[in-house]
Amino acid sequence: MKKQFNVNQSLSKKIIEAIRISLNFPKKKVYLHEPKFIGNELSYLKECIDTTFVSSIGEFVNRFEKNLKNYTGSKFVVAVVNGTAALHIAMKLVGVCRGDEVLLPALNFIASANAVSYCNAIPHFVDSEEKTLGIDSKKLEKYLDKITEQKNGLCINRKTLRIIRACVPTHIFGHPIDLNGLIKVTNKFNIELIEDAAESLGSFYNKTHTGTFGKIGILSFNGNKILTTGGGGAILTNDKIIADRAKHLTTTAKKNHEWELFYEEVGYNYRMPNINAALGCAQLEKIPELLKIKRKLFKSYKKSLNQLSLNNDVKILQEPKGCSSNYWLQTLLLTKSSMDQRNDILYKTNQAGFNTRPAYSLNHKLSHFKNYPKMDLTVAESLEGKIINLPSNETI
Amino acid sequence: MKKQFNVNQSLSKKIIEAIRISLNFPKKKVYLHEPKFIGNELSYLKECIDTTFVSSIGEFVNRFEKNLKNYTGSKFVVAVVNGTAALHIAMKLVGVCRGDEVLLPALNFIASANAVSYCNAIPHFVDSEEKTLGIDSKKLEKYLDKITEQKNGLCINRKTLRIIRACVPTHIFGHPIDLNGLIKVTNKFNIELIEDAAESLGSFYNKTHTGTFGKIGILSFNGNKILTTGGGGAILTNDKIIADRAKHLTTTAKKNHEWELFYEEVGYNYRMPNINAALGCAQLEKIPELLKIKRKLFKSYKKSLNQLSLNNDVKILQEPKGCSSNYWLQTLLLTKSSMDQRNDILYKTNQAGFNTRPAYSLNHKLSHFKNYPKMDLTVAESLEGKIINLPSNETI
Repeated sequence: MKKQFNVNQSLSKKIIEAIRISLNFPKKKVYLHEPKFIGNELSYLKECIDTTFVSSIGEFVNRFEKNLKNYTGSKFVVAVVNGTAALHIAMKLVGVCRGDEVLLPALNFIASANAVSYCNAIPHFVDSEEKTLGIDSKKLEKYLDKITEQKNGLCINRKTLRIIRACVPTHIFGHPIDLNGLIKVTNKFNIELIEDAAESLGSFYNKTHTGTFGKIGILSFNGNKILTTGGGGAILTNDKIIADRAKHLTTTAKKNHEWELFYEEVGYNYRMPNINAALGCAQLEKIPELLKIKRKLFKSYKKSLNQLSLNNDVKILQEPKGCSSNYWLQTLLLTKSSMDQRNDILYKTNQAGFNTRPAYSLNHKLSHFKNYPKMDLTVAESLEGKIINLPSNETI
Repeated sequence: MKKQFNVNQSLSKKIIEAIRISLNFPKKKVYLHEPKFIGNELSYLKECIDTTFVSSIGEFVNRFEKNLKNYTGSKFVVAVVNGTAALHIAMKLVGVCRGDEVLLPALNFIASANAVSYCNAIPHFVDSEEKTLGIDSKKLEKYLDKITEQKNGLCINRKTLRIIRACVPTHIFGHPIDLNGLIKVTNKFNIELIEDAAESLGSFYNKTHTGTFGKIGILSFNGNKILTTGGGGAILTNDKIIADRAKHLTTTAKKNHEWELFYEEVGYNYRMPNINAALGCAQLEKIPELLKIKRKLFKSYKKSLNQLSLNNDVKILQEPKGCSSNYWLQTLLLTKSSMDQRNDILYKTNQAGFNTRPAYSLNHKLSHFKNYPKMDLTVAESLEGKIINLPSNETI
């Protein structure tokens, strides 16, 4: 029962209509992202209960790590308690120390800046590009040319005299960033690259999985992600020494011994429990289907927006050239002329039972990060006013 | 088929014999502590899968918190990802800052000293008493009289000039420490009391649940604990402001809003996922049975040791007067004459398929903590050579 489209209605009404059409006129509230359990989830959970292995020891953790290795192509994978924990340990393992600076996109989930703080280091916010929503590598290169100098193989911020130790780009909403460009920049300036692929499991850049280009990559399996372990994350690396250190640090740095309790350094209780890994094993088996659902939904949104002639007001973000995005969060970008209607659209779509969301708050505007270094952030600031995420996990 | 007891065999052989008798001659390897799932675990997990609520939102977290409130008598409970996370946030919430000192027993699991490190603070190790294995409050009082002075309502270490901000006693292996004594000391010296009840869910001091005496208490639900959520912990407090802050900080300090993503301070991803809370709800329903199993096992060990006339060589640790212990880990204390056989007993019991364990490594001896302040630790050092934990969760 398709409804007639009225050309005089406000943009928010038109967008609600487009969502309705795209989602096949759903009859109840639609969330931004709900998990989908279409495989062996319950049977693996039952196995945990039957064997009593639900916690820090158990075969599902090993199996989940192995299956993630196979899927991502990363040589080593360490499953952890969530993506934030993965970021924290990744930063420690590339040597982020007290007083170092870490380059982060201003347009980003808060976990990265928090993890920098846990290391007593300082976020340094950089700009994004509209095409991928990720770090603009060309702009970054010019900026670093201007503000840094090399000293003993380290990149020094000439103004603050601090070491710029690492750069942590995020593949925002699952869209791969310009990795070739960014790798060139981090190599040129001797900055460690940690890839935040929390949102991009299932996204490939030139046919290689995101999260495997940097010295370390991280994943997240929170409930809103493409697949979930309840709470969970992973550290990806091709470096055995880093992988061993990651496993050691995330399991309280305990010395391996059948009964002795001896600890070798300050460690973390960041291991993923076996019961959460069991869920992950079942979910990962279904990732091809989960990705198909998302791509189909993207096409449906694209078609409806087109059908309702909304292309002057909004566009839907498409995977970058040469990439395959997981389309984790479907993303509308308002055009310049419709940006002033963002809040109205957010309010009315949510009122209409469609859970939509604006971009992440720009990190450099949050009161606790506002005095930290930053470059010109024109594009990120403009994107903040343009982005609306749409319900992103409906099977249609 | 009971075996004959040979008076000439070595102590380790006798202890193996006592374990065998106590556990009714088990036919396979016996672990130190395995979880027991005797209730609604699977049905609650199924409910999570069916409703898709496995992660950061879900009714099991609320229900688990409510049921823990009812069970412990704590006015507020915040479920978190593990006991270490609970300790970290508890320390932050009593104001532990960079350079503060925190009094910890040297004989302790490593999580407390790690959590102090996460706050950039300094562990200050104190001695234990043999009766409870917990902090010796009389000895601590004398020590603090000697080394501290009061200044603006703060306790200052006269030697280091640092603030001694908090004291975090642990109810080791589930046995309540001398709380009345310690509360008197922390009050006298203006030191905040955080009770580490990670090991003592189900243990009561003067009929009041451990973890509810300090400004904050913490619990753990790791796989080896009396009940498990896979991985998990909780913060207990009677102070609403602290409880609200704990919930806020452990859920990334996100401002409450239907769709905006706005963060108010550096926060943590420490929430307990709903699927882990589901397990906790089922386990907590069975805590009376779980406690009965442990008490029965204690009595069985006591009887066998008596029967084999081992009382001159070892004694089994009994709940302190006026307390009800959960007997989480059954604990042998070697007498002075048998201490030299500790390693032999550990080795041979493990070889025989009984997973036994020594005491925690004394924290002040670990290389990364060895330069921190400490008092005379004679008793803790003696206890390290005396303690052997026995398999502690067999149903007999």
